[in-house]
Amino acid sequence: MKASQFHFATLKEAPADAEVISHQLMARAGFIKRLAGGIYTYMPFGLRVIRRIENIIREEMNRAGAVELLMPLIQPAELWEESGRFSAYGPELLRIRDRHNRDFIVQPTSEEVVTDIARQDLRSYKQLPKNLYHIQTKFRDERRPRFGIMRGREFTMKDAYSFDRDKEAALISYQKMFDAYIRIFDRLGLQFRPVAADTGAIGGSARHEFQVIADTGEDAIAYCPDSDYAANVELAEAVAPAAPRGPATEPLVHTPTPGQARCEDVAAFLKLPLEKTVKSLVLAVDPAEGETGSATIWLLIVRGDHSLNEIKAGKVPGLAGFRFATEAEIVTTFGTPPGYLGPIGAPGPLRIVVDRTVAAMSDFVCGANEKDVHLTGVKFGRDLPEPVPAEQAGADTDVIVADIRNVVPGDLSPDGKGVLSIQRGIEVGHVFYLGTKYSEAMNATFIDTDGKPKPFEMGCYGIGVTRLLGAAIEQNHDDRGIIWPLGIAPFDVAICGLGWAKSEPVREAATKLYEACLAKGIDVILDDRGERPGVMFADWELIGVPIRINVGDRGLAEGKVEMVRRADMSNESLDIDAVLEAVVAAVGAKS
Amino acid sequence: MKASQFHFATLKEAPADAEVISHQLMARAGFIKRLAGGIYTYMPFGLRVIRRIENIIREEMNRAGAVELLMPLIQPAELWEESGRFSAYGPELLRIRDRHNRDFIVQPTSEEVVTDIARQDLRSYKQLPKNLYHIQTKFRDERRPRFGIMRGREFTMKDAYSFDRDKEAALISYQKMFDAYIRIFDRLGLQFRPVAADTGAIGGSARHEFQVIADTGEDAIAYCPDSDYAANVELAEAVAPAAPRGPATEPLVHTPTPGQARCEDVAAFLKLPLEKTVKSLVLAVDPAEGETGSATIWLLIVRGDHSLNEIKAGKVPGLAGFRFATEAEIVTTFGTPPGYLGPIGAPGPLRIVVDRTVAAMSDFVCGANEKDVHLTGVKFGRDLPEPVPAEQAGADTDVIVADIRNVVPGDLSPDGKGVLSIQRGIEVGHVFYLGTKYSEAMNATFIDTDGKPKPFEMGCYGIGVTRLLGAAIEQNHDDRGIIWPLGIAPFDVAICGLGWAKSEPVREAATKLYEACLAKGIDVILDDRGERPGVMFADWELIGVPIRINVGDRGLAEGKVEMVRRADMSNESLDIDAVLEAVVAAVGAKS
Repeated sequence: MKASQFHFATLKEAPADAEVISHQLMARAGFIKRLAGGIYTYMPFGLRVIRRIENIIREEMNRAGAVELLMPLIQPAELWEESGRFSAYGPELLRIRDRHNRDFIVQPTSEEVVTDIARQDLRSYKQLPKNLYHIQTKFRDERRPRFGIMRGREFTMKDAYSFDRDKEAALISYQKMFDAYIRIFDRLGLQFRPVAADTGAIGGSARHEFQVIADTGEDAIAYCPDSDYAANVELAEAVAPAAPRGPATEPLVHTPTPGQARCEDVAAFLKLPLEKTVKSLVLAVDPAEGETGSATIWLLIVRGDHSLNEIKAGKVPGLAGFRFATEAEIVTTFGTPPGYLGPIGAPGPLRIVVDRTVAAMSDFVCGANEKDVHLTGVKFGRDLPEPVPAEQAGADTDVIVADIRNVVPGDLSPDGKGVLSIQRGIEVGHVFYLGTKYSEAMNATFIDTDGKPKPFEMGCYGIGVTRLLGAAIEQNHDDRGIIWPLGIAPFDVAICGLGWAKSEPVREAATKLYEACLAKGIDVILDDRGERPGVMFADWELIGVPIRINVGDRGLAEGKVEMVRRADMSNESLDIDAVLEAVVAAVGAKS
Repeated sequence: MKASQFHFATLKEAPADAEVISHQLMARAGFIKRLAGGIYTYMPFGLRVIRRIENIIREEMNRAGAVELLMPLIQPAELWEESGRFSAYGPELLRIRDRHNRDFIVQPTSEEVVTDIARQDLRSYKQLPKNLYHIQTKFRDERRPRFGIMRGREFTMKDAYSFDRDKEAALISYQKMFDAYIRIFDRLGLQFRPVAADTGAIGGSARHEFQVIADTGEDAIAYCPDSDYAANVELAEAVAPAAPRGPATEPLVHTPTPGQARCEDVAAFLKLPLEKTVKSLVLAVDPAEGETGSATIWLLIVRGDHSLNEIKAGKVPGLAGFRFATEAEIVTTFGTPPGYLGPIGAPGPLRIVVDRTVAAMSDFVCGANEKDVHLTGVKFGRDLPEPVPAEQAGADTDVIVADIRNVVPGDLSPDGKGVLSIQRGIEVGHVFYLGTKYSEAMNATFIDTDGKPKPFEMGCYGIGVTRLLGAAIEQNHDDRGIIWPLGIAPFDVAICGLGWAKSEPVREAATKLYEACLAKGIDVILDDRGERPGVMFADWELIGVPIRINVGDRGLAEGKVEMVRRADMSNESLDIDAVLEAVVAAVGAKS
């Protein structure tokens, strides 16, 4: 490709609505152009990256035995009514009417259509397993689209759907996709991490998210540097401390802590480590519909430096559907307003849940249920009943122990292989075991070996193609612009002719090198625009092409050209006869 | 690809709604699956053909200097209001509202978006010419979608848009696209014809349609086998006969023709050739809005074996906006009901237009404006005024001569290079000079050499990607199924293992050949499904794979396999060692 024939739309300034660096750089480098909120044109440079990403995904999906098709964008509401999603899906589902006033939707995913295909085409167990996928435009009518094409409304996604005889086979299909995803993200040249995205109730691996590591990511990931363990912070298990509870050496003392309501303040005031304090959170569970009476009040206790994990809290028996207690409920139960609450001596009826870490504490500090006073030297079994594990607890258990907090760096890894670190990531893919949710709802069955119809066991597997561009840039950029990994760059090599308009030797040498690169199958662009070197260099550094070759009169006089690597901006003077070989070696790593 | 891993959905019966052979075959071969009226899933076999077509189009568009991008499906109404199309476009434009109740459309084409890009990015004449294209899903909410994906609602189209400084440059861009289209349709392996689709008022070549030749086509094309001339029948010029008008030898005679109202009947009754008769058609033009008076009545006369071309009639000065006259108007003007009308002796005021061919007739037959009577021996200059060419006629001219009929086979070609033939075609592409229609409406300008802003001169260029599948099949099929041209077949070669389940040598030989083909880069599928030969053969003949290799025990015993060419079903026994070479030679013609 010659630059003079290509389409450049680099900008000096990022648009005002570009909050994140990837959006700013994509807009400035002319990769995308905004058409409406969350709707972008993929400009020529951007489209080239998208196509390369798509091709890597396609090759690995095919290698894993998946078969590509293309399901429609506009889908009839009837199918979505069969699955129940037409009404259940929120306003993100763009519902439309055609000229005959029939209801349709613009697809956000295609579970219904693919299940409809399966129930027509897959009649026998002999046709299974089957994995059908497409790479297709999606629309989700986000209330507040942002981050450019990272959270757009119109975007491109690869979605695959597996069909199997039984759960065991489905989990094999799941594993195949998991393995294919590892290969895909490896080939994309990205640092990533597959992250368990549920509690592992089904076979231990029913849902994984693939996260591209980036400090600016929206998700926090807990992982073990010494093993494969990784999970969203919200879902990572906080295991009980390895060491048994230490001996209690102090008496229970009412200690004045005037004006010190927060754990940090109490610890500082008492000159104790924060780890000696606990935090009290008061939840309420309203009576079930149709039942009468007041809400059940729960006190949840985590260590002073920890935070409550509401997802985990909701899984404690009895706490499903909890809400935070009102101040009135707190005063009624504890006899005091929030700030100095604790598990000991509350006047009202109360159920108590302590975190696993708290259950292993001794001589700790909690609120005394009295303004400006804390209790120190608190001890389980003396001042409080011994906590009972949630799974053994009954409705009359006073103190339950459960995992109710978010993990923090340094926590033991649940797989016992080290301690956890935390990093941020951007979700770019997921693999998800669906079971028979759609096949049962849509009566999609096959004839099994016993001659009887059976619903398909399904899995779904997504990769956000356009989102990957944003994630790759969030991970790989510097002050000059984007640093594309080899393999997904819009071009691998840019050849800049310095003084193009004036110098016949430059034009000749640059064009010759350009043609030699083309002959080697290298994705090369020749910058023949006749721009000043500074403009050319700034453009290519912003656009992020991995290798730049500068061809100028001064170098040519000595038979030299310059090769610049975008990743580290390293700079090498090469004999013009050796440059092709160097370029091939530099881009050869590309898959 | 191994067939056992691919997705087959061949059907014995075509769906009831499949009216045309391409729709029937695509559905039976499992290339498409209906989701809703005019909305289809592209199944794996179909998608492979689509991708190959897209790649050929993409390569030739790039070669012609066009640059690919991808414009959004969902486009804001505001842009379409700028061009005026939001209200002007009929109900085929799918208008939708997002969750914030803002108006959007699903794109049927992208003139507005691309013009918006041009006005942002193309600031200077130095950036011109520019041609931007995308291959994207389109939606047109057809009232009555049919013919499968030939006239669907959701379909895939390549649309390109050129931007130029002036009309001269625009027509160069136009010609480049015209040439690229020739290469594209050549490479697709289709018989096609570029057809002038307007009267050639602008530079002689402002609009061409590309028609794939097929007997079942919707469009009739007049073409000259001895030259490049081709035009839609509706638009092809019917030139005046080469020979001058013959001498008039008969007197004008009132001849009884009882009950003979049609030309064919009159000719038979009078034992005259049909070419001696003329047909009278009565049109009316209502007074312009705001004016009073009754409609102007026109009599249009074509030869008895010709038919009126209403598009041409509408271009005769004074006839714009005509309608057919009512029976009351006819009786008032001619003194007799339809059946025996003619240009001579009508009692009412009348303007007469005769076709060029009629103007060259002598001693002809027309109605006498009297029931059951015709006039024979009619002569211009004696019985009727000499016709005056339309361009010289005034409001008081009695008889105008103009081209008002459809051409018929044997007519002189307008380019003077032979006579016309007529064949049917399916429109699969068009090239269209737009001028400044969109750039002026949307104020899309660039700075020209003189420093002044000037609207872009534009062209648009479409190819119906999915429609091409249907057209290719309409052109290439037989009783067994589809016959794909090399280059767009879903696979080039199918290797059928006969007795797969039972024979280890068959499995071994077929697999070895399969792997050898893959190593040569051949698009091959190995039929390892273990189906009976009859089932396999029927499937591959229906699906239309160009080359089939049958590997069976009987042949292997003699070191032979069988190669079947789908196009002519010819059958060759080949040494197993020679088959790879034969396959390479057979598919080598593919571009």
